[in-house]
Amino acid sequence: MAKRADILVRFGKRVRELRTEQGYSQESFAHACELDRTYMGGIERGERNVALRNIERIAGTLGVSIAELTDGV
Amino acid sequence: MAKRADILVRFGKRVRELRTEQGYSQESFAHACELDRTYMGGIERGERNVALRNIERIAGTLGVSIAELTDGV
Repeated sequence: MAKRADILVRFGKRVRELRTEQGYSQESFAHACELDRTYMGGIERGERNVALRNIERIAGTLGVSIAELTDGV
Repeated sequence: MAKRADILVRFGKRVRELRTEQGYSQESFAHACELDRTYMGGIERGERNVALRNIERIAGTLGVSIAELTDGV
């Protein structure tokens, strides 16, 4: 059985999935979240141990709940 | 309309709810999560901006997904 990807990687992929579904570029999405573009890149690459306040900010910008944002993560 | 409680407070209440439902004391739960008891107290009081690795650890100890842990949060 394949090892499950790291939580940070799984979360980053989920953010990228929802962000692209909504037609945001990474840069425009970072701007909408009021987060630094390089920080957002790090989140999507699974390099950031994102905490609740930024998770809430990302979910809010996407218009989803935190539970929806982490669905399947 | 009442202002919605802070995300950290909402998350802490949810952790406490699931933890007590499963019959854990705060101390035994912290031990099961391999987290410091005072840190766990801070989480439940909404004083900690908990990040993904510890969110995953808490969910795993409770036997729920992160989406279930954050349901309604």
